[in-house]
Amino acid sequence: MDDRIHEHARVLVDWSARVERGDNVVMSVAEDAHELAVAVAEALGERGTTLQTVYDSDEVSRAYLTAHDGDFEENPSHELALLEETDVYLRLGGGRNTAAGSDIPRETRQAYSRSRQAAREARMDTDWVSTIHPTRSLAQQAGMSYETYCDFVYDAILRDWESLAGEMAQLKTLLDAGSEVRIESDRTDITMSIEGRTAVNSCASVAYDSHNLPSGEVFTAPYDTEGEVFFDVPMTIDGTRLQDVWLAFEDGEVVDFSAGQGEDTLAGILDTDPGARRLGELGIGMNRGIDRFTDNILFDEKMGDTVHLAVGRAYDACLPADESGNESAVHVDMISDMSEESTLSIDGEPVQRNGTFRWEDGFDAERI
Amino acid sequence: MDDRIHEHARVLVDWSARVERGDNVVMSVAEDAHELAVAVAEALGERGTTLQTVYDSDEVSRAYLTAHDGDFEENPSHELALLEETDVYLRLGGGRNTAAGSDIPRETRQAYSRSRQAAREARMDTDWVSTIHPTRSLAQQAGMSYETYCDFVYDAILRDWESLAGEMAQLKTLLDAGSEVRIESDRTDITMSIEGRTAVNSCASVAYDSHNLPSGEVFTAPYDTEGEVFFDVPMTIDGTRLQDVWLAFEDGEVVDFSAGQGEDTLAGILDTDPGARRLGELGIGMNRGIDRFTDNILFDEKMGDTVHLAVGRAYDACLPADESGNESAVHVDMISDMSEESTLSIDGEPVQRNGTFRWEDGFDAERI
Repeated sequence: MDDRIHEHARVLVDWSARVERGDNVVMSVAEDAHELAVAVAEALGERGTTLQTVYDSDEVSRAYLTAHDGDFEENPSHELALLEETDVYLRLGGGRNTAAGSDIPRETRQAYSRSRQAAREARMDTDWVSTIHPTRSLAQQAGMSYETYCDFVYDAILRDWESLAGEMAQLKTLLDAGSEVRIESDRTDITMSIEGRTAVNSCASVAYDSHNLPSGEVFTAPYDTEGEVFFDVPMTIDGTRLQDVWLAFEDGEVVDFSAGQGEDTLAGILDTDPGARRLGELGIGMNRGIDRFTDNILFDEKMGDTVHLAVGRAYDACLPADESGNESAVHVDMISDMSEESTLSIDGEPVQRNGTFRWEDGFDAERI
Repeated sequence: MDDRIHEHARVLVDWSARVERGDNVVMSVAEDAHELAVAVAEALGERGTTLQTVYDSDEVSRAYLTAHDGDFEENPSHELALLEETDVYLRLGGGRNTAAGSDIPRETRQAYSRSRQAAREARMDTDWVSTIHPTRSLAQQAGMSYETYCDFVYDAILRDWESLAGEMAQLKTLLDAGSEVRIESDRTDITMSIEGRTAVNSCASVAYDSHNLPSGEVFTAPYDTEGEVFFDVPMTIDGTRLQDVWLAFEDGEVVDFSAGQGEDTLAGILDTDPGARRLGELGIGMNRGIDRFTDNILFDEKMGDTVHLAVGRAYDACLPADESGNESAVHVDMISDMSEESTLSIDGEPVQRNGTFRWEDGFDAERI
């Protein structure tokens, strides 16, 4: 086994999930994540946790969902009971075909997602971490050879997370103190309130309310969005390519939209529920170890010199204790490249221009 | 996908597990049982059940167990909570290496097993069914090509179970009414009491208290065994081949024994505890779709024209409510071919001769 798989397992279990002896752990294993599952199981055994392993197969899900009449039981009690007793949930992605679910009817997918709201919330209440094992399917999606893709993945994952956490803390400080964010770029001029919201320094550890490995972004939960935004980075949602998405907001809600590709899928997402038309997240990518787009949101949204906005659910970690943020069954991230002719400002002060932060060499305070 | 996989799934879900709309189903999937899992998921979706899929990997278990210090948490609450809310548990076997767990220390395995007693009992309280998907690893163990092994497995599984259940009911009726069974064959003349015991018609359906697919045996719990018996079908116990086992009984206990191969292992089994020298089961194989020995007890003991006797623990289902049967830490089945020069009699009346039952064409009531 590649030594990097064992290193990945150790980072996941110790830095990211912070497992402790006696923790009830659920490890969810995608179709081709077997080798990582073996390495993680070894680490979990060494640390004296208890382990329940779940099989997360896109092909099994597709078979089940396409055969079902769509009238799903609300919140299946066995899944819910498992998750309510779970301390740590580790999701090891890495399937065989990123388009395996592309022919599941949208209504079925939405109904299934709605029926499992309680289970999803219970999972989010655990110390959950989502990571991926490099597979040939993901290499293909990224347009890379398998070997090059493995190098890419481990370069992104096996980082000095403590050091990156220190860098990202500077942006978190600015966002926590600020009231309004404005993003200006190609076909984009959008403002949103962040008053009273708390940014997450997402450095791939539950100790920082960060649940992705790799990570490397700072994100918050905006509201009262106004203006328009263009996402020039393509992405794949449920097997469908979304490209050149444009959204227009009024009073915090999407009032108009278009897409160069995948407009029906986009419409379906926005129609899931009322919350699907409002923003749940503003994220700013700061992981410069991720040096190219690979059509995988787990990596793309963390890339340095990008911002992403998500329609749908907001993360509790960004909200005051007495306030509920945007609620929705969906959370769909879309990404804009900020490396050219772009400015991110907080309360009128440029913080990032053309991909360079104000505390970095080469920052240009003048207008684009 | 091979049509037989879909047929297997339908038999499992409808005949064996009798799933109903709204049932909470757990489907446990071994490493190479993916294709069957997809077919079963489709059937479960069609029938409106809710599905939680578990990954049952021997390599993951080995990694976890060999790394653990052996001081396991008692009855992990997340696994237990899942099983307590489960109506139907489907175990789809079919790994990649039948020896994958061979280097797990015995003490670790035993400690882990003890720590999960409550979970095991909760699983046994569900409508559970254990089946296997044909894999190359199992074909190798059977000494067959993969293609021939697939034919073998589906011949055993895709039977007219309703018709076989009717046939087996005739034998159950005779055993339930009878007092004494006598088996005569090569180097074999043995009698045992079955007075007051109830036979199980094991026809691969939870509706008949039968939990294996394939099945096809009628079994009961004998006692007061006298005489000698020779087992000409080889088997593998704890990695050791047992062949040509001969046992002599007096007053219900083994008083002499020999084996052509594995005699030390046999001696160890018989010395486990007092109950290990008494019979716990008489089983009569009636599945003629199973026509050869494949070193897999799930199939071997169901083979048509065979009987098997187990030393050790008896099944509760065969005992009167106020009576405890033979107790032991072991239950080891050993098999005899009854197809030639053999007679099985109940209370002096031949019931099977040379593999043919008395209700079948060609039954010869005369002595062998």
